[in-house]
Amino acid sequence: MAPSQEEVTLLGVVGSPFLHRVQIALKLKGIEYKYLEDDLNNKSDLLLKYNPVHKMIPVLVHNEKPISESLVIVEYIDDTCEQNPILPSDFYQRALAHFWAQFMDDKCVVAAAKFVLKVDEKEKEKATEELYEALKFLENELKDKFFAGEEIIGFVDIAAVFIPLLQEVAQIQLFTSEKFPKLFKWSKDFYNHPVVKEIMPFKDQLFVYFKARAQSLAAKKKN
Amino acid sequence: MAPSQEEVTLLGVVGSPFLHRVQIALKLKGIEYKYLEDDLNNKSDLLLKYNPVHKMIPVLVHNEKPISESLVIVEYIDDTCEQNPILPSDFYQRALAHFWAQFMDDKCVVAAAKFVLKVDEKEKEKATEELYEALKFLENELKDKFFAGEEIIGFVDIAAVFIPLLQEVAQIQLFTSEKFPKLFKWSKDFYNHPVVKEIMPFKDQLFVYFKARAQSLAAKKKN
Repeated sequence: MAPSQEEVTLLGVVGSPFLHRVQIALKLKGIEYKYLEDDLNNKSDLLLKYNPVHKMIPVLVHNEKPISESLVIVEYIDDTCEQNPILPSDFYQRALAHFWAQFMDDKCVVAAAKFVLKVDEKEKEKATEELYEALKFLENELKDKFFAGEEIIGFVDIAAVFIPLLQEVAQIQLFTSEKFPKLFKWSKDFYNHPVVKEIMPFKDQLFVYFKARAQSLAAKKKN
Repeated sequence: MAPSQEEVTLLGVVGSPFLHRVQIALKLKGIEYKYLEDDLNNKSDLLLKYNPVHKMIPVLVHNEKPISESLVIVEYIDDTCEQNPILPSDFYQRALAHFWAQFMDDKCVVAAAKFVLKVDEKEKEKATEELYEALKFLENELKDKFFAGEEIIGFVDIAAVFIPLLQEVAQIQLFTSEKFPKLFKWSKDFYNHPVVKEIMPFKDQLFVYFKARAQSLAAKKKN
């Protein structure tokens, strides 16, 4: 994928951390694209056509070929565009990046979602425990500045974008600087990186997304 | 990873589809390794040392560097050993392989597990529906013989090893030849491939694994 002169379209919903992962990757690579905002409660024909399996955003369409699942898309962008590598070239480091990105989806995103929803006190307590257990592993994994090392935004940083999204934009304190000093600093640094800051939604956009997501999930439960 | 003269150790529990994924990849590449059988109900110190995050098998240890998560391991093996490629070299095909392998874990393995456990009639019905919906997508994705194409075992075939494991070894009929003719044929062909057949556990080994897995899950629920 060359930075320009290619047909790149991205289907998304602003506020979705999964969309913002892809947008950060495209921005890091300097790839221009056409952005199409979708509607979680009234999905477009284009979304249903390009992601018939999950019917979920984000979908990247490169020269009419669609790709779904945010981390699969980020890796495809990295594979097809050499500048500013996102995944390490060393195979062991690459495997670790895959491992931690998967950990982010399987453990952290799930725990953070429960933490934010926090239905009752007992559930909240359990969710907090799960979230802290997951974050403890991340705190230990963090390098000097980013997960990939000083000044370099990598695959795991991109996978972790939901942290500054909740912590900085929505001002939901997932953790304090006392509890996770390295993660706290990472969240601020990552959020303030020019590539990331430009992409992050505004607070009201985020709330619109949360509301639509909750409605979409509620409708799914009914069916 | 050269086929020999490297220190390769694999921690597993026979009967686990996640272990057998890694074993198929190692066999395809002709890589020799030392196999250590673990115990789900009394995990070894080595397992806890090498996979402190999930404390789960399989773990591959290559020259003292541990890697966890079966699909991450399979990709690492493919990255480090060129012969008999498992992932396509074309970036779009590679993205599709990543997508379908993830689909296998997120949708099919979960649905198949529910189907096999089938607690009550209503739950069984729902699980069957979920499983069939997921398998329908796979049926459409299947090429002539394997997911990667005629005579070539690829990433998605390896990810799908739980299907012949249940269908052929445990003789749990996940689906019939009438309902999913291509998948039915694929399951038989894949199971009978010399590389796969040599690795597949015996029926009684599979039942020992299922029992230990159920006990391990029950103990987790109690905590």
